[in-house]
Amino acid sequence: MTSNHSYNMDRLYEAVSSKGHVCVGLDTAAAYIPEAERRKAPSDAEAIWAFNRAVVDAVFDAAACFKVQIAYYEELGLAGMEVYAKTLAYIRSCGGLVIADIKRGDITETARRYAAAHFGGDFEADFVTLSPYMGMDSIEPWLAYAESRGKGAFVLTRTSNQGMRDFEYLEVTEAPPATPRRLYHAVGDKLALLAAAHRGVSGYGAFGAVVGCTEREEAAAIRERYANLFFLIPGYGAQGGAASDAALLLRDGNGGVVNASRSILKAWTGRPDVREDADNDFAAEAARSAVIAMRDDIASAVGKNP
Amino acid sequence: MTSNHSYNMDRLYEAVSSKGHVCVGLDTAAAYIPEAERRKAPSDAEAIWAFNRAVVDAVFDAAACFKVQIAYYEELGLAGMEVYAKTLAYIRSCGGLVIADIKRGDITETARRYAAAHFGGDFEADFVTLSPYMGMDSIEPWLAYAESRGKGAFVLTRTSNQGMRDFEYLEVTEAPPATPRRLYHAVGDKLALLAAAHRGVSGYGAFGAVVGCTEREEAAAIRERYANLFFLIPGYGAQGGAASDAALLLRDGNGGVVNASRSILKAWTGRPDVREDADNDFAAEAARSAVIAMRDDIASAVGKNP
Repeated sequence: MTSNHSYNMDRLYEAVSSKGHVCVGLDTAAAYIPEAERRKAPSDAEAIWAFNRAVVDAVFDAAACFKVQIAYYEELGLAGMEVYAKTLAYIRSCGGLVIADIKRGDITETARRYAAAHFGGDFEADFVTLSPYMGMDSIEPWLAYAESRGKGAFVLTRTSNQGMRDFEYLEVTEAPPATPRRLYHAVGDKLALLAAAHRGVSGYGAFGAVVGCTEREEAAAIRERYANLFFLIPGYGAQGGAASDAALLLRDGNGGVVNASRSILKAWTGRPDVREDADNDFAAEAARSAVIAMRDDIASAVGKNP
Repeated sequence: MTSNHSYNMDRLYEAVSSKGHVCVGLDTAAAYIPEAERRKAPSDAEAIWAFNRAVVDAVFDAAACFKVQIAYYEELGLAGMEVYAKTLAYIRSCGGLVIADIKRGDITETARRYAAAHFGGDFEADFVTLSPYMGMDSIEPWLAYAESRGKGAFVLTRTSNQGMRDFEYLEVTEAPPATPRRLYHAVGDKLALLAAAHRGVSGYGAFGAVVGCTEREEAAAIRERYANLFFLIPGYGAQGGAASDAALLLRDGNGGVVNASRSILKAWTGRPDVREDADNDFAAEAARSAVIAMRDDIASAVGKNP
C-alpha cells in the first residue's frame, strides 16, 4: 500500500523506459505458421510452441512485454493448454513479462480460484486481463497477489472493438449532483481508487486498465482523468489506431503498452522475399522487423507529443 | 431462425419438465471431498474426478442439468483441465446436459476461437456462460454454434453477488424518448432481440440470461420483460435466495434452472450420521438428498405461485 512497494507494474514501467512501448500478442493460430514448419511438426500445438519460441527469441530485446491470448490455446484442447503453459513459462524464464489475456470475471471464492490458477502453478503469468461486469468483488480477490507477489492486472475499461458502444459507451447516471458519465468511466473511476491504494514506485497502481486507441477525441481526457492507471492499449494497426492515437494515451513517454498481434506474427507473409519454403527463422526475423518498426513509430509519435 | 428449430435450450426445457429445476454446480474443491477418498487418490485432480462421477451418478435423475465452474479446475493446472474435460464428457456420455461456467467475453476472431474451444473438442459443453461487457460482438460469434449444433449460452445479466450494484445496477440513459433503465436491462433487452431471432420449439431463445434470485422486488418485472429468455438462476441458499424468490423468475413452471453447488457437494459434512471414514458413496447419497429436497422446495414454491 506504500509508494515504495514494487509491483510487476513497476517492472513494466522500467521495460517501457528501456525497450519501448510494444506488447507482442502471441495470439498464435496454426494458420499463421509457415507451411514447411507445420508439416514438420507432429501436431498444430507443437508447431505453435516452436513458432512462439522463435518469435519470443527474435523480438525479446525490442518488446516491453508479451500478451498471450488463451482462446487460441483453449481451441486446441488439452494439447493447446500445455503449449499455453509452456509459452508463459518460457517468457518468464527469459526474464520477460507476460500478460495472460484471459478476461476472467467471476466473484469471491471463484475469483480466488482463478487468481490461484493464473498467478501460480502451471499457468502462472505476471499480469492478467479481467472483465469488470459483475462488479468490484470480481476484481478485488486478485489484489491479494499484488501485495504478496507483485502481480498485476489490466481491467477492461474502454475497449477497441465496435461493440464497445453497446454497453461501455452507455451514459450512466447516479444520484445528483453526480455528473453524467459513461459506463467505462464508472469502471475507470473505481480502478483509479484501487490504484491509489496500491501504488508502486513508478507512481502507477498495481492494476491498470485496458483502453483502446480507437477513439482519438477521448484520449487526452482519459489520460488526464486516470493519471495513476497504466494502460494496456489495443486497437493499433488493423483496428484503425495510429501511433499518434496511442501516444495520446501515454504520459511522459510511459504509462502504457501498445499491443499488436497478427501484424507481427504474420509479418512474414507480406515480405517481398517470402518463399514457399519459408521457415520459423524467416517468420521470426520478419516479426522482429515489424516490432522495431512499430516501436519506432510510437516513439516518434511520443516525441512529437511529449 | 424458425420456431420449429430445436436447440439445447429446448432439451433443457424438457429436462425441467421431467426432472425439476435443479442445476447441480460441480464447483468441486478437493477440500469438499471426504478425507478417506482424498488419501486414497493419487492426486487432488484424481480425487475430484472420482467424486464428480459419484455425484453425477447419484443425482442424475433428480437434476435438470449440471454446471461446471472451470475456475476450480484451472486452479489445478493441466491436471485440473484434464479432469474438467473428463467431467464434461462423462455427463454428456450419460445423456445429461452440461453448462460450462466459463464467463468468457472477447471479440470477433478471439470469440470464434473460444466458441470452437468450448462447443467442440476436448472441452465440449452443451451451454456456456458469457460476459457481455465488451458488447454484442462478444456474444454473436457463439451463435453460429446454436444454428449448426444447437448449442446454448447464458449471458450475465443481473447476477446474485453484492458487487453487481457497482455496474449492473447503474442507471443508463439513452437519447430521448428512451426511458431510464439499468445496465442489466440494456443487456437483457439485446438478449431478448437475439432470442426472438433464434427461438426454439419451446418458445425460448437459444441463448438465455443469468438472473440471480437475490432481489425479490425485481423478479416479477424481469420475468415479464424477458418472456422469451430462459434463465440460469444463481443465488439460491447461501446467497440468500429462497425457493419462493426463484419461483418468481420462472414462468408456467418452467423457463429457468436454479443452481446450487456447495450446499449439494458439501451436504455430507452436515449429516448427523457422518463418520470419519465417510466415502464418496456417503457424500453422493447426501448430495442426492440435498438435490431432491431443493427440487421439491422449488416445485412447492412454483405450485403456490403458478
